[in-house]
Amino acid sequence: MTQTAGELAKYLGANLVGDAHTPLSGVASAANASETDLIYFDSQRHRERVEKSRAKCVLARPGERVAGTTIVETPNPKLAFAKAAAWLFPQEAPRALIHPTAVVPPSARLATDVTIGPYAVLEEDTEVGAGTRIEAFCFLGRGARIGMNCRLHPRVTLYAGANIGNRVEIHSGAVIGSDGFGYVYGEGRHWKFPQIGTVRIGDDVEIGANTTIDRGSLDSTDIGSGVKIDNLVQVAHNVQIGEHSVLAAQTGISGSSVLGKRVLAGGQAGIGDHCTLEDGAIVGGQAGILPGKIIRSGQTVWGTPARPLEKFRRQFAWLARLPELAERVRRLEGD
Amino acid sequence: MTQTAGELAKYLGANLVGDAHTPLSGVASAANASETDLIYFDSQRHRERVEKSRAKCVLARPGERVAGTTIVETPNPKLAFAKAAAWLFPQEAPRALIHPTAVVPPSARLATDVTIGPYAVLEEDTEVGAGTRIEAFCFLGRGARIGMNCRLHPRVTLYAGANIGNRVEIHSGAVIGSDGFGYVYGEGRHWKFPQIGTVRIGDDVEIGANTTIDRGSLDSTDIGSGVKIDNLVQVAHNVQIGEHSVLAAQTGISGSSVLGKRVLAGGQAGIGDHCTLEDGAIVGGQAGILPGKIIRSGQTVWGTPARPLEKFRRQFAWLARLPELAERVRRLEGD
Amino acid sequence: MTQTAGELAKYLGANLVGDAHTPLSGVASAANASETDLIYFDSQRHRERVEKSRAKCVLARPGERVAGTTIVETPNPKLAFAKAAAWLFPQEAPRALIHPTAVVPPSARLATDVTIGPYAVLEEDTEVGAGTRIEAFCFLGRGARIGMNCRLHPRVTLYAGANIGNRVEIHSGAVIGSDGFGYVYGEGRHWKFPQIGTVRIGDDVEIGANTTIDRGSLDSTDIGSGVKIDNLVQVAHNVQIGEHSVLAAQTGISGSSVLGKRVLAGGQAGIGDHCTLEDGAIVGGQAGILPGKIIRSGQTVWGTPARPLEKFRRQFAWLARLPELAERVRRLEGD
Repeated sequence: MTQTAGELAKYLGANLVGDAHTPLSGVASAANASETDLIYFDSQRHRERVEKSRAKCVLARPGERVAGTTIVETPNPKLAFAKAAAWLFPQEAPRALIHPTAVVPPSARLATDVTIGPYAVLEEDTEVGAGTRIEAFCFLGRGARIGMNCRLHPRVTLYAGANIGNRVEIHSGAVIGSDGFGYVYGEGRHWKFPQIGTVRIGDDVEIGANTTIDRGSLDSTDIGSGVKIDNLVQVAHNVQIGEHSVLAAQTGISGSSVLGKRVLAGGQAGIGDHCTLEDGAIVGGQAGILPGKIIRSGQTVWGTPARPLEKFRRQFAWLARLPELAERVRRLEGD
Repeated sequence: MTQTAGELAKYLGANLVGDAHTPLSGVASAANASETDLIYFDSQRHRERVEKSRAKCVLARPGERVAGTTIVETPNPKLAFAKAAAWLFPQEAPRALIHPTAVVPPSARLATDVTIGPYAVLEEDTEVGAGTRIEAFCFLGRGARIGMNCRLHPRVTLYAGANIGNRVEIHSGAVIGSDGFGYVYGEGRHWKFPQIGTVRIGDDVEIGANTTIDRGSLDSTDIGSGVKIDNLVQVAHNVQIGEHSVLAAQTGISGSSVLGKRVLAGGQAGIGDHCTLEDGAIVGGQAGILPGKIIRSGQTVWGTPARPLEKFRRQFAWLARLPELAERVRRLEGD
Repeated sequence: MTQTAGELAKYLGANLVGDAHTPLSGVASAANASETDLIYFDSQRHRERVEKSRAKCVLARPGERVAGTTIVETPNPKLAFAKAAAWLFPQEAPRALIHPTAVVPPSARLATDVTIGPYAVLEEDTEVGAGTRIEAFCFLGRGARIGMNCRLHPRVTLYAGANIGNRVEIHSGAVIGSDGFGYVYGEGRHWKFPQIGTVRIGDDVEIGANTTIDRGSLDSTDIGSGVKIDNLVQVAHNVQIGEHSVLAAQTGISGSSVLGKRVLAGGQAGIGDHCTLEDGAIVGGQAGILPGKIIRSGQTVWGTPARPLEKFRRQFAWLARLPELAERVRRLEGD
């Protein structure tokens, strides 16, 4: 479906400089764009690339001009580009099709416009909200519940009782609600601690491919609304994650840790059990937070064991200068 | 099914103080418990929570009392709680149902009370022991063998020839017996070293979601009985893991390493190839053990490269004091 | 099928010492070999093991002799062994069988001798080359394309538009072409940056179990020919990996990083976004490269943040000696 630059400017509430009838059929990078693709321009480093692009419509900061193009002015071109993409490519309208090979028991409660792909399996007492799309090989264990306008890519597993909000997107291979990892050692063996809690995922959450989120042991694992989780992340039992937090790939969060709102964890970060990360805390890539630690609101930590970034940097700078320091000590001794 | 506190005390061989007829229908945390849930009390920090609980039956240390409740006395309440949970919730009785969509060739040998879920695929010459439950989308490659009373959650893959013991639980997305990662570089390319060995999993093993365990290259990968493996763990070809060892999430063990009995690896630990970890060795979270290293029995190591915990701590303490040390050197120079 | 030592020597262009009629039916380790298994001998450390082996045919360096065996002389016995294994066990001839439960729409273009396993799902406009084998539960999204003589083990997911070359092997649970992890924060929430690029995998690539490779956001993610990727590896959007590079298990590569040819990454290595690793760079296990860094051709780096190996070693040696250095400073102060 083709839109125009004028319609986009109106959608964004933005000023337009140029031809409001410039057609728009998609978004692209400057290098790959066709004449009807929208691009964005937010750094002078990319000026040459933008000027060489075939694109005829550019999101740019107010006052910015690119010869031969229509400009839609916006203070944050990248943000406007993300919003424009969602506006140009609305989610595929649900086909309201239950594939004949899907296993759906009579006790499952499906809203009327649900799409279920080939070989999906829903167990008893599952529930799927309006507009939700469940792709091939997905598995919804007994009593699992998904809200509206969600998308489960192929082969997502929801264990029994998992509870998913609205507008949640879960990528292929993710496992939600698996048993937590808890044992009590006694009499020469490990006894499994009961893992019978649940997992609750809020609204507008995205969960990456092959990520695993365990159910609570006795209570619940809770992922707040707006949280974004990358691929291959591990979230252990009883973890609480506040709204709009972001976990980069291969991060691991141990049992019962509590993350506030807008916490950021870099790739491969590790958070020990029973930690508290207050709102806005930032954990650097590969950092490791010791069990039970508290990271204060807005603090950035790095290293293993994790410490405040400034402290890490100072220590690291001195580590690099250690050979020189040692030489100075040797000279003093020689005096 | 409801039991009583008296029956529990008898099962545990424990002393009961209070009403032996107190009914028990489940286990719970103190906060979530109903009147018929069992809870446990093993730390004075939780006294208030236990006293406020609706639960009428509490596992507690001998001599401990909680007003209005029946106490089952036990030296290790958490261990007793784990045992009680298994006793109150016995594994679901096998339904001995082969779902009509499961692909089971005539050459497969199934014990009579096996449950196989929808869309499971068994290849030729596979074998499944009595009471074992194989859920949706599981794949058993040619000649794979599973013992008795196992549970494979949805979409577990066993490559050809994988050999699983009894009472093994494998979570969704785990891959057992995939090819090891071995190549020989020559003539400008990597030639795949043969990966034709097998993988053997002992009894009472639990394997987490999306964990991968490679087959041996020429010999076998062996996981001992009682071993517990968390989510997203990587076990490479030819690795040997002794009984009752525990690997936390995202740990990686490189090829041909040998772990003794009751070895513990914290989350995201990395063990190089051809290492030896003797019985009871402990590897801290995110620690990295260099290839070929030997960790002695009972030793705890941390850091990358991993060193004994005491040494790590001492070095780390000095690292934190480096700026101060440098200042002292500067002062000496100024003298 | 049985071959002979003479045929093997001819295939390798190697000299034979002994009985050219020695039959060969497989390859094995020295310990497990039967009389008709081929073994290799490339280190005097293994002489005893080789001499005790039942094997009658040994790949060994020129001049090497083992009593009672036929020797095939080769300068690199391990390389010859890998090549011999591929020669003795040619890929199973394609059975050219589309399992009746596979979902294959009329718009899919399948070469004539393709094998598709039970419950595989191909979406519209997919394409599969000659001799390729797609196993159970694999999913090929709309427009995905696979070349010739590939093997997809059970439950591999290709997102829409993924493009796979020839002779590619992908292990169970891998996800190719999932959405990249990119958001723009604004107005109190994360807006998804468009993830509409593609992913291209070259020829002769092997991809491990449960590995995830994201599509490009606007452009493409490219994996060069001959690249080998282990289990549980994460490759983010827009990453470029040059030919014959090798990524060990649990490595993570962040968005837009560019790896040259024959780059090696050890297990659990982390590479920040927008890094450049020139040809032949080596990243040690668990090393962490900061975003935007350039690692020069042939350089080896280690640690987090990663630095040249020599520098890391020197710093680490001094770290170990810090307590001693501090004591020396104390003594100077006492003077």
